[in-house]
Amino acid sequence: MTTDKTINTKVHRTSPDRHTILHLNNVLIGEGNFTVFAGPCAMEDAEQAIQTALAVEKAGAKIMRGSIFKPRTSPYSFQGIGPEGIEFFKIIKQETNLLIETEILAPAHLDLLAEHVDILRIGSRNMDNFNLLIEVGKTGMPIILKRNMSATLEEFLLAAEYILLEGNDKIILCERGIRTFETYTRNTLDITAVPAVKELSHLPIIVDPSHSTGNRKWVSSASKAALAAGADGLIIEVHPSPEKALCDGHQSLHLHEFEKLMGELQDLAGFFKKKM
Amino acid sequence: MTTDKTINTKVHRTSPDRHTILHLNNVLIGEGNFTVFAGPCAMEDAEQAIQTALAVEKAGAKIMRGSIFKPRTSPYSFQGIGPEGIEFFKIIKQETNLLIETEILAPAHLDLLAEHVDILRIGSRNMDNFNLLIEVGKTGMPIILKRNMSATLEEFLLAAEYILLEGNDKIILCERGIRTFETYTRNTLDITAVPAVKELSHLPIIVDPSHSTGNRKWVSSASKAALAAGADGLIIEVHPSPEKALCDGHQSLHLHEFEKLMGELQDLAGFFKKKM
Amino acid sequence: MTTDKTINTKVHRTSPDRHTILHLNNVLIGEGNFTVFAGPCAMEDAEQAIQTALAVEKAGAKIMRGSIFKPRTSPYSFQGIGPEGIEFFKIIKQETNLLIETEILAPAHLDLLAEHVDILRIGSRNMDNFNLLIEVGKTGMPIILKRNMSATLEEFLLAAEYILLEGNDKIILCERGIRTFETYTRNTLDITAVPAVKELSHLPIIVDPSHSTGNRKWVSSASKAALAAGADGLIIEVHPSPEKALCDGHQSLHLHEFEKLMGELQDLAGFFKKKM
Amino acid sequence: MTTDKTINTKVHRTSPDRHTILHLNNVLIGEGNFTVFAGPCAMEDAEQAIQTALAVEKAGAKIMRGSIFKPRTSPYSFQGIGPEGIEFFKIIKQETNLLIETEILAPAHLDLLAEHVDILRIGSRNMDNFNLLIEVGKTGMPIILKRNMSATLEEFLLAAEYILLEGNDKIILCERGIRTFETYTRNTLDITAVPAVKELSHLPIIVDPSHSTGNRKWVSSASKAALAAGADGLIIEVHPSPEKALCDGHQSLHLHEFEKLMGELQDLAGFFKKKM
Repeated sequence: MTTDKTINTKVHRTSPDRHTILHLNNVLIGEGNFTVFAGPCAMEDAEQAIQTALAVEKAGAKIMRGSIFKPRTSPYSFQGIGPEGIEFFKIIKQETNLLIETEILAPAHLDLLAEHVDILRIGSRNMDNFNLLIEVGKTGMPIILKRNMSATLEEFLLAAEYILLEGNDKIILCERGIRTFETYTRNTLDITAVPAVKELSHLPIIVDPSHSTGNRKWVSSASKAALAAGADGLIIEVHPSPEKALCDGHQSLHLHEFEKLMGELQDLAGFFKKKM
Repeated sequence: MTTDKTINTKVHRTSPDRHTILHLNNVLIGEGNFTVFAGPCAMEDAEQAIQTALAVEKAGAKIMRGSIFKPRTSPYSFQGIGPEGIEFFKIIKQETNLLIETEILAPAHLDLLAEHVDILRIGSRNMDNFNLLIEVGKTGMPIILKRNMSATLEEFLLAAEYILLEGNDKIILCERGIRTFETYTRNTLDITAVPAVKELSHLPIIVDPSHSTGNRKWVSSASKAALAAGADGLIIEVHPSPEKALCDGHQSLHLHEFEKLMGELQDLAGFFKKKM
Repeated sequence: MTTDKTINTKVHRTSPDRHTILHLNNVLIGEGNFTVFAGPCAMEDAEQAIQTALAVEKAGAKIMRGSIFKPRTSPYSFQGIGPEGIEFFKIIKQETNLLIETEILAPAHLDLLAEHVDILRIGSRNMDNFNLLIEVGKTGMPIILKRNMSATLEEFLLAAEYILLEGNDKIILCERGIRTFETYTRNTLDITAVPAVKELSHLPIIVDPSHSTGNRKWVSSASKAALAAGADGLIIEVHPSPEKALCDGHQSLHLHEFEKLMGELQDLAGFFKKKM
Repeated sequence: MTTDKTINTKVHRTSPDRHTILHLNNVLIGEGNFTVFAGPCAMEDAEQAIQTALAVEKAGAKIMRGSIFKPRTSPYSFQGIGPEGIEFFKIIKQETNLLIETEILAPAHLDLLAEHVDILRIGSRNMDNFNLLIEVGKTGMPIILKRNMSATLEEFLLAAEYILLEGNDKIILCERGIRTFETYTRNTLDITAVPAVKELSHLPIIVDPSHSTGNRKWVSSASKAALAAGADGLIIEVHPSPEKALCDGHQSLHLHEFEKLMGELQDLAGFFKKKM
């Protein structure tokens, strides 16, 4: 860690028992709790949205994830459904008690998203987009900040500092795998980042077992490992028909697989005396 | 390379002898030419700006680099002088014939920069900021696109595709080192990226020997290696007093070192029959 | 995975429910069991050896690890106590029921070690030392094969194939962290390697939470994560006085820390219905 | 660099103008010279051997490379022709004035190879095989030491220290590419390692443009970059029929390509005032 030690950063821990816990309605995120975010990579249509939402809620998750703006390596890939996806968020709000989380790509989308969603996500590619960090900081909204795939832990925490400096401490850090030489998995889940971040910072940290592994067959193992390593939650990709998904189908759980995993996680959370 | 082969991308080469060459006033960038961009990491004050500009021009460079908006890992680091740096650009334009290149961090700065500079730079951290790529694409201005430190060549070229799709082919690709396990150097200069990009794309590619090595003592060797490997130019950090620089002083050349290097590069460019 | 599919390798799985389980006296290693190897990085003297052995056995481990030949980056570092360490192995055998595991560096040591230890370890640096793999294969002794820090999973499994081809299937694979850009931890524990190897191969896989994290404060989290991810065991560095250890003290657990961890692992193994 | 500064290592530079130069008959290797080693990845048969040797000598190279023992990731790949390849070395010695360089995999081969070849090569996989380093150190023969694909420069130099401590300073360091996330090239040629090693050590350093790039189409660019960066030579794979080669054909130059490259390198070496 190379941060100038004479600076009193806000992201680093000042005492061993200080923990920032977010209260979103009756959902708690942080120390002592284990919170699961679940949903499709991208919102595709009303049926996919509501079908997934109902299954996610039934399985016991309290927050739905789903992007309407998608950053893609190729401009020829599906870029997200865009503003019309807001309608799906409205339907989900009507039909379920789920909170909604979605990705923000640019300050221009802030007003629209702030009106209709509960939590904003800064994706891996935007962890270094400091202008965007400052703007979401100003909103005071809960923010999931994903680690850039080539960011050190120090760089990751300093990105959170940009948000904290705007007076917003509703931050959930997310380890989502780093880029290494190994290509059999999509990324390499840096599981030790969980205890390391818990030691360095008072902020909650969750794990993304979908992007970090890149294949649904490893999501269950990675999820349990994250819980056992001390993570405060997970963000999992789920889809009613993964083989037809417009993005990331390979790593999305089927609805029944998600339901089974949630049951196992509830038992394991009980073992570790975490509320889920 | 995993791009869908059925898509006719604009960035990939269609024939072995197609080369995009940028004409900026009397400065040529691309095949057969070797173009040096030089200047400080950040514009600091009028004296530093004009002193560097005069030395850069005297040494034979035709384009001045210098950031007024700086993306920094820590919010506590110098973030650039901001809009008042425009005055320095004006002075340089009055006193020299240099073209000016600077970094763009957000669409909000586009109008201001477009009025006063000749070339916009998309920094490594913003290679994946697709909204910004689209916006600079729309301006039609010449763009330096730096490779993200963890981007594959395929991802690098597809980022350029976002700009090309807006009808802007005035793109200069820039290899600036990738992040690896080796920490003795700041990054690892991926020298093979030069012939690989020349083979895959018609766009010019330059090398940043300052960020890729991270230490002025290796800049000369890296610069000559880049020229010998087939690069179309260099972007080099130069400062009148590197030890007092507000950023990247460690890797900035002294003015006299730059002048010496330019002499050597002119001879080497002659050997390779490149115009400089 | 690039292995020629027309070759019937011995290391890859031929059916989903085939599991190789090693029986060493009354100790089982493989599917359904969770086996802990523990001991110092290096054997130092009789007192350290026996004190650690007694504590390790009392805490419930059945196999003692300890090197007498040490491969070190620098020739000026402690290279292990050498052949006289055999005396410590004899004492441990007299005083405890522990099995003994130690590292083999060269075929020249084979006869000596085969006479006095139960399990040979091929260290990370020697995973590609194919001559050594063939020689240990010929002994028919149980072998721990550690993944090279820059080996892909495919390369890891093919190294095991060299041993298998000598007719020796008593192999325990060991994930011990890979080398990445992150330096806050010593290596990056590739936790997904656990389910991936279980899927690809019938051989047991254990995790080294000491080398993969590089700091005793993360060993507990990494150990639990490994168990939750499906690992068949752990190899943990333990020392009576880590601050005085001749190597790897920073990552070695104190004896009381190890005892506490073993209690927690026994509970967790019970949760996952594994015998320990 | 983390080496204990109180130790007077032999590999590090003690003064800026100290350069170790090897004299092998009339061939010089080190500062001021540019020496090319060339030949096939593996010796295959008498015809391939002598045909390549004659072409390599005609093109101006003075040292032939060629392995008879091959370390391979898979035990099912061609493992080298073995001891009968010695006959090819004898024929080459009769028909040409070339010096011969070959890889040593195990101490057991030392006597045989020492009798018939001039230079031993420690391959990338064996850089950490400290026993082998000590044994080749004792021979006093010239040694090419290749950098492990995941070794830091510090680890690379300390491997050479093992040889130096046996009283053998006839060492040629070889940068052969490191393993990174980029897979378009086989490895990433760390070109900055050249000036960095020249600064840290008095030993000569050469570059392997074949393994570092993995494709013959990039060998010419990488070779020129290496010369321009200050390397003392190259080790290049050449084959009369690369498409039929038993290993590494993809990265081996055709004989006519090698002849053309040698001509270009001679001109470039002249530009840099190096003897070739």
